[in-house]
Amino acid sequence: MKRVYNFSAGPAVLPQEVLEEAQEHLLSYKDSGMSILESSHRGKEYSAIHEEGIANITQLLDVPDDYAVLFLQGGATTQFSMVPMNLLGDRRVADYTNSGAWASKAIHGAQSIGRVNVCADTSKDRPARVPEISELNLTPQATYLHITSNETISGAQWKYFPEPSVPLVADMSSDILSKPIDVTSFGLIYAGAQKNLGPAGVTLVIIRKDLARRVGDEVPEIFRYKTHIDNNSLYNTPPCFSIYLVTLVTRWLLKQGGLEEVQKRNEDKALRLYRAIDKSSFFEGTALKDYRSDMNVTFNLSTEDLEQTFVQEASQHDLKGLKGHRSVGGVRASIYNAFPLEGVETLTHFMKEFEAT
Amino acid sequence: MKRVYNFSAGPAVLPQEVLEEAQEHLLSYKDSGMSILESSHRGKEYSAIHEEGIANITQLLDVPDDYAVLFLQGGATTQFSMVPMNLLGDRRVADYTNSGAWASKAIHGAQSIGRVNVCADTSKDRPARVPEISELNLTPQATYLHITSNETISGAQWKYFPEPSVPLVADMSSDILSKPIDVTSFGLIYAGAQKNLGPAGVTLVIIRKDLARRVGDEVPEIFRYKTHIDNNSLYNTPPCFSIYLVTLVTRWLLKQGGLEEVQKRNEDKALRLYRAIDKSSFFEGTALKDYRSDMNVTFNLSTEDLEQTFVQEASQHDLKGLKGHRSVGGVRASIYNAFPLEGVETLTHFMKEFEAT
Repeated sequence: MKRVYNFSAGPAVLPQEVLEEAQEHLLSYKDSGMSILESSHRGKEYSAIHEEGIANITQLLDVPDDYAVLFLQGGATTQFSMVPMNLLGDRRVADYTNSGAWASKAIHGAQSIGRVNVCADTSKDRPARVPEISELNLTPQATYLHITSNETISGAQWKYFPEPSVPLVADMSSDILSKPIDVTSFGLIYAGAQKNLGPAGVTLVIIRKDLARRVGDEVPEIFRYKTHIDNNSLYNTPPCFSIYLVTLVTRWLLKQGGLEEVQKRNEDKALRLYRAIDKSSFFEGTALKDYRSDMNVTFNLSTEDLEQTFVQEASQHDLKGLKGHRSVGGVRASIYNAFPLEGVETLTHFMKEFEAT
Repeated sequence: MKRVYNFSAGPAVLPQEVLEEAQEHLLSYKDSGMSILESSHRGKEYSAIHEEGIANITQLLDVPDDYAVLFLQGGATTQFSMVPMNLLGDRRVADYTNSGAWASKAIHGAQSIGRVNVCADTSKDRPARVPEISELNLTPQATYLHITSNETISGAQWKYFPEPSVPLVADMSSDILSKPIDVTSFGLIYAGAQKNLGPAGVTLVIIRKDLARRVGDEVPEIFRYKTHIDNNSLYNTPPCFSIYLVTLVTRWLLKQGGLEEVQKRNEDKALRLYRAIDKSSFFEGTALKDYRSDMNVTFNLSTEDLEQTFVQEASQHDLKGLKGHRSVGGVRASIYNAFPLEGVETLTHFMKEFEAT
């Protein structure tokens, strides 16, 4: 069976041993005689998976007792509305940083619900970067401050987080579980699973429980965090198979040695790629050095034609998904947790060869 | 590899050949070198699956051009809010039939959005039934009429649909694609996939496109049908793997000969079970005969203890998931499209043996 190096920005590569385990059990999970795809979400097989997934995430991120770990649906895009529906209220304002395409979408989502103050805007900066903490023009008594921890498209990442007096809310879709974080610094973290956590179809939310009580009566129950906390993410039928894969991925992360070890490997992979870029005048990094993402390594060649040739020839060498996002062009190598070091080495080798010919 | 007979009400049994195909391609879809779980939702492999799924459903149900077929997330429970958010408006009223537990949930969802007239209520009737069309106390100028085509818990099913002058909206979660229907009789049909269509995590919506234009500006874009029509269900990352399985299931349904053939098989399976119930005074059907569901066959034994013993002994014979819903007790055999005839025969045989001993 052929496997390629999959640099896709998401849905993205999963650990091969996770796929192999899912494959083995696809027609009969353990001795149940049925697939997890077919199992009741209230049965003992799925219940154990659901609880283990929550426990693994709690352990990996050292999530304290006053936070809830939720599995929801609809991706970060649904969270762009759910966060303000639950936390913003009618007459108050939330601070949002605009660090690029994904932050812009979060802002757009919130603006349809309530008042937004864009407290810093680096979305047009080239080379790409995220705001400095010192640049934030915060509103006194804002309801929360929202950041996008990693901009998948531009390849810029927050390396330190602000510590506002109000709850910090973060879209961590593209770097969740890629390194240790201090959950207590955040009021709410959300992440679509399809980059670092599992397949598309499930959204992780980690929320300080008291914040979930802010929600107004006008918000439908299905869109209240409180509903999902009270029902342990079983208010409606959960996306069982996607959560099963998240459970297998988090089990794999624990086996790797936890997030400190995972961070080391991620930084090593990114460093090798950025070194290959910087060593040569043939390639140019898209993001400012201090803000370079460890997850999405973005770079340009001298012309669009050359970039196209690069992506095409790379694809012929089984280096897939390197085309930059259609809105910005260029080249993008997404190297999430499950992306193997050998794939990075193969790419840096290919870059050298491509430059030489 | 052991497979049991899975009578679960949902998530429910899938066709074995669908699972086998998914299993074969789980590490590398066709020659792509990556799993569908890992493939970009904008890549050519997934795009072909997405389009085929829509085309198969269009063909199976003969969906006309002025309707859209959508793949959303959040199950029927999310639709309980999305339907009134999109169609109801502030100052108008919608008619809802209350035929049981699921209709009650749809009503509860709508009541948090706007005004609801319960135009018929059979939810407390025992034996269970759905309303007669002649009983409906319709509101002049209602925005729509909502029905729940099959009550999974009580086992009562609409056999004929009302033909109101306003759009008819139906939760078809538990009998979608189990028989031909005239889509033009409906304004909107929705169905969580996890009973007749595929695994949990994707929701099918079929909507007459003009109805999607009714939505007010106050509704967040992610919750507007219009958004998903305009973006062919790719406004946000879709639940790709769940949709892949829906595509395989609909391909399988076409191979069975389409919905007329599927209906014949479903009616045959249900008839055999109801005959076994009626032939004996040991078992008693829960629903009134004219309304008996072809999908969820519900029945009682003389005492709860006997029911418990029945379910336990059946389980020892690899007849799984027969316990009735915790809210009503009794026995429930869910026999959706993918449930094999042999499983029904095994159950009727077991019923006879159980009664004799």
